[in-house]
Formats: sequence, structure tokens, C-alpha cells
Amino acid sequence: MSALPDWLCAPLPTPDEASRKAALARQSRLTKPAGSLGRLEALAVRLAALQARELPQARRVHISVFAADHGVAQEQVSAYPQAVTAQMVRNFAARGAAVTVLARELDASLEVVDLGTATPLPPLPDVVAQRLGPGTQNLSREAAMSAAQLVAALEAGRAAAQRHDCDVFVGGEMGIANTTAATALACVLTGRAAREIAGRGTGVDDAGLARKIAVIDTALRLHAAQCDTPLEALRRLGGFEIAALAGAYIAQAQRRVPSLVDGFIASAAALCALRIAPSLAPWLIAAHRSAEPGHRVILDALDATPLLDLDLRLGEGSGAALAVPLLRAACALHAQMATFDDAGVSRAGA
Amino acid sequence: MSALPDWLCAPLPTPDEASRKAALARQSRLTKPAGSLGRLEALAVRLAALQARELPQARRVHISVFAADHGVAQEQVSAYPQAVTAQMVRNFAARGAAVTVLARELDASLEVVDLGTATPLPPLPDVVAQRLGPGTQNLSREAAMSAAQLVAALEAGRAAAQRHDCDVFVGGEMGIANTTAATALACVLTGRAAREIAGRGTGVDDAGLARKIAVIDTALRLHAAQCDTPLEALRRLGGFEIAALAGAYIAQAQRRVPSLVDGFIASAAALCALRIAPSLAPWLIAAHRSAEPGHRVILDALDATPLLDLDLRLGEGSGAALAVPLLRAACALHAQMATFDDAGVSRAGA
Repeated sequence: MSALPDWLCAPLPTPDEASRKAALARQSRLTKPAGSLGRLEALAVRLAALQARELPQARRVHISVFAADHGVAQEQVSAYPQAVTAQMVRNFAARGAAVTVLARELDASLEVVDLGTATPLPPLPDVVAQRLGPGTQNLSREAAMSAAQLVAALEAGRAAAQRHDCDVFVGGEMGIANTTAATALACVLTGRAAREIAGRGTGVDDAGLARKIAVIDTALRLHAAQCDTPLEALRRLGGFEIAALAGAYIAQAQRRVPSLVDGFIASAAALCALRIAPSLAPWLIAAHRSAEPGHRVILDALDATPLLDLDLRLGEGSGAALAVPLLRAACALHAQMATFDDAGVSRAGA
Repeated sequence: MSALPDWLCAPLPTPDEASRKAALARQSRLTKPAGSLGRLEALAVRLAALQARELPQARRVHISVFAADHGVAQEQVSAYPQAVTAQMVRNFAARGAAVTVLARELDASLEVVDLGTATPLPPLPDVVAQRLGPGTQNLSREAAMSAAQLVAALEAGRAAAQRHDCDVFVGGEMGIANTTAATALACVLTGRAAREIAGRGTGVDDAGLARKIAVIDTALRLHAAQCDTPLEALRRLGGFEIAALAGAYIAQAQRRVPSLVDGFIASAAALCALRIAPSLAPWLIAAHRSAEPGHRVILDALDATPLLDLDLRLGEGSGAALAVPLLRAACALHAQMATFDDAGVSRAGA
């Protein structure tokens, strides 16, 4: 493979221990029984360490949705025709898709990056055209991407991260057949078999699921032995949008911005990014547990306990967007609750 | 016991079937794979049926926090001194408590109803004084409330419900030792033993937990045989704030307002309300699963699957407030997403 971009291998910032300690001490003074805000306390302290400030913020949220088509769609692994990828990019631009509704609800900025739909698209509002081709190659027959395409997709993710200042980043994806790519990638990264991880994606029937597993098995026979690095696995089995997500997660961490990781596909991208840059772990916050059965395997590999469990399986970054209010609540409670001393409230055992 | 108020026994409205069907049909047209928004789809459809409109709302949220002291606190069943109840009412009034921070974050109205703290309080902003005494009697020695106090507490909950128009109601509570009362009540309502349900509340140690279980066992020996109705159980073992919550849940349902049910104590109140008015079930939306171990037992008795599971155990309505953004997101997605036809997106199998 061609040379890696230098930035992929640059050291990541570490969580700030002084801010973590200050936040922890602050939590112990707030007017509530110790630990009674459960995971929100841990979240506030974690965000403090990541953002290197005693009072973290989750007000400014940016959502990047990466869209691209997949050559493997020709194997009939999705319930939807390939044209839907481009149609959904139009739907994002028109603000009619789930994640765009949630972005408005959250007052978050949202940008779609078109990395290559099979159907070409005209210029659209809030859609950045960065097309690397009309989708990837069919990963069950050849490598999904060339080395140049992989680097360009990673760079596109980094560029998206750098275009928008934010406290918290949400990455989303759209691409018909991308659960097939994400599953194949997850198999190589976790050592599991396709039948253990593969699910119904957007809703294939039993025959479709069997076909999907067979296609992934074929791809693994073709590629697995040569996937000796996470980047090579990503090149052979991933997708433009999956690589862009991986690049965005790493680039955001380099800017001290934590990422809320969405469902199955985003988590496969996050796991790949983590294998590329092992010190990425603290910067990835698992937003939700998807209904896609293989998500549990990926979450285990990420050593992550998601915040929400609502049987979501839409992608687009929608599940990550839904977790934003929890981060905001954790920050608001941390910053705005009175202390025992200020409020004149007695402590336990007093 | 004295005569029941008529309104407690008045029939409750039923969810509107036409609105439910219209909302379900609408969900099937939105640009997403069927079912991919998981529990948010069911939530939107449920709210539509409850509010009797195809497009439900969760914008206007009102939070009532009922505060009262408990005579059983003298048995040393809490980690905190009894004075904390009144201190926390002051903290609510000063907007320094968790639920008041969350109310601000949600732009929700919030009112505290002082039903009787052991320490008298001066007039305070956003605190309605409706004192029924300096707390309940010690339920391990006598009935917690007189019949007149029980009726007054239920009426106070109803009055709070009627003072504020809202799309969704959040009930909260504050009262040192009220996990002891709620546990005793839950034991009678579910047939479980204290040792199966009792937890550490605000954080008692092992000796405190053993004491708490012994106190509840004593109370059950004294009262259980006479708890032949849910109202009599509530009178003997409950608290002013628990009865007010039960009254508020029923009164809100009568106004077609669904309630988000908070943690252990609020859920015990909800279970009691459900036993008083069995058709209340659809109006109670379980917000979260508390870290208090007995909450699972009460949620099972409510046949409810909570939306969040974040190891919270604070009360005040805080966990219910944290679930509000999920209701708002469900409503926004339901109302604002494009349909397949409008967006020109192909359907599955096309």
C-alpha cells in the first residue's frame, strides 16, 4: 500500500488528569448523594478530562454524514436499490431525513459529504462533493478501494473534522449495502465469522441474510489473509464513508474533540480507527446499542457501554444525535448544580 | 377509611384508536426502513393515541416536585438527616438542585409543593405551601397518615396537575426516608418481602440497610393484614408526596396528559395509582431504570420497559426529566421527516 498520511500516526492528546480530578472533586460537592447521578457523573468527568477544562461543554455539536455507494450492492445484499444512496443525499439536503430533523432539534450544524454515489448528484445545499468514484468496487471480487482512494477517503474525514469547530462530534453514514462492508471489516478486526455478526441491515429477508453471509464469506476467503494491518482491511473490505468516519474520529481526537459513535457501521469504523490509533479509545463515546446483532461484538471490542438502547438501526448518525441531550444534561448538572456549602444542605452522616 | 373523592374513581380516557392508526400509517411512509427508529416509533404512535392527534407534542413539559418528611426517619433508615428535606426545598427554590437544572435545560416549568417538611419553611419562590403536618407519622409504629391527610395529599397532586397545562407531565419527590415508605408500599402491592426490594436509597451502609429491612418488616407485620385496598396501603405505608404523585398521575390522565414516571419512589406511587385506577396503565411512561434494586420489581408490576438505564438513583423527577428529549425527538421525527413519496426515495424491494 502507498505511504500513510503522517497525521494518521501522529500522537493523540491524552485526557487531562488535572481537569479530571477537578471535575471529580466538583461532583463530590454537588447537592446530591454521591454517585446518584450514575453514568451522567462519569460522563461529565470524562468530558472534563477530554476537553481539558473543569466545566466541559456539549453545546456546539457538529454532524458530518458521509455518503457513498458500494460495489457489493450488486450481490443483492440490501433490501433497498442502490439508487437510494443518492436519493437520501437529496433528502438530507432537503432536511427531510431523520438525522437532519434531529440536527434541527439539537441546533447542531450538519454537513453531508458525498464521497461517491452511483448516481451522480448536482450541487446541493450543505452537501460537499468529494467524489472518489461511483462507489467502491465489489469487495466480494476485488479490493473495495485503491490505496489512493483509501487515503483520499481518510483525508476527506479529516477535512470534514477541520471545517467545523465543535465541543462534540457526531459522525453519520449513508450507503446502500454498507452493513455488508462493515460486517466484513468487523469479522477481520474481531476474528468472528460472518454468521456470528451479520444482521438484516435495513431489513433483508431470510434469503437475503443467507446471501449476505455467503458474500461476506467469499470476501473473507479472498482478502482476510492479506489484511495484515487495519488500514489494509479497511481498503479491501470497507467503504469510502467508513474510511472517512475513521479519519474523522482520529482527526477530531487530535483537536481534543470527543466523538459520539453511532450504530453498527459507525462503530465498525471506530473500531478500525482504534486499531490504527490505539490511543483513540478515550475519545470515542458509544452513543447507543443498535438492534443490529453484531453491534454487541463491536461494542465489546471497543470496550464500550453505550448510553442508549432503543432498538435503533437507522444509521445516518441518528442514534449518536439522540445521545447529545444526555451529554448536555451531564454538563449542565455538573456546572449549574449548587454545592452543599453554597446551598446550606447537610451531608450524609451529618 | 373516609369516603373517597369522586374524581379518583372517575373513568379515565382511553387512547384514541383513530389517532394511533393515523400515526402508525404515517410512520410507514417516512424515509427510513420500517422499524429502524425502534422504540422512538412506538413512542410517537403511543403519544399520538394518548394525545388524540396524529402529530403528538412533547414541547410543553411541566414538572411538579412534591416534598414531605417521614416519621419513619427517626428509625435511622437514611444516610441523611431529616433537615435535608427542607434544605432541599430551599435548594429547589434557588434552582440549585438537579431537577431544577434539568428544567432550565428543557425549558420546562417547575413547581415545588411543600406538603409538610419537619422544619417549617418561609414563603419561597415557585414553592406552593400545602402543609398537611410536619411529616407523616412513623409507619413502623402507626399509620403514616390519617384518612383526611391521605385525601388532602391526593387532592394536592390533582390540584398541581390542574394548575399547569402541558403536553407531558413529570412528577418528582423529595423526602428523607421515603425509599423506606416506598419499599414498604411496594412490598404490600407486589407481595414481595422487604429483603427482596429494599436498597440503599441515598446510600446507607450495610448496617443501615439491615435496619431499614427490619423497620419495613415491623411495619408490614403491623399493617399488611389491613391493607385490603391500595388506598389503605398508601395511607398506612406511604407519604404525603407519594400520595400526591399518585393523585397527580390519575388527574393528568383525566386531562389526557401522559406522565413520565421517574425512579423507585415515583414508580411505587405510579403502581399504587394503577391499582387504584387500573385503566391508568397507558398514561404512565417509564422513564428510566433506577440503580435502586427494587425498581425492577416495580417496573415488572407496571409491565413497563423504561427508556433509559443510566444507574440514576437521585429522584426529584430527574430521571424522568432526562427522558424528555427522547419524547421530543420521537415527536419531531414523526412530524418532520419526509415521506418516501415527497422525497422521491425508493422503497424496500423496489
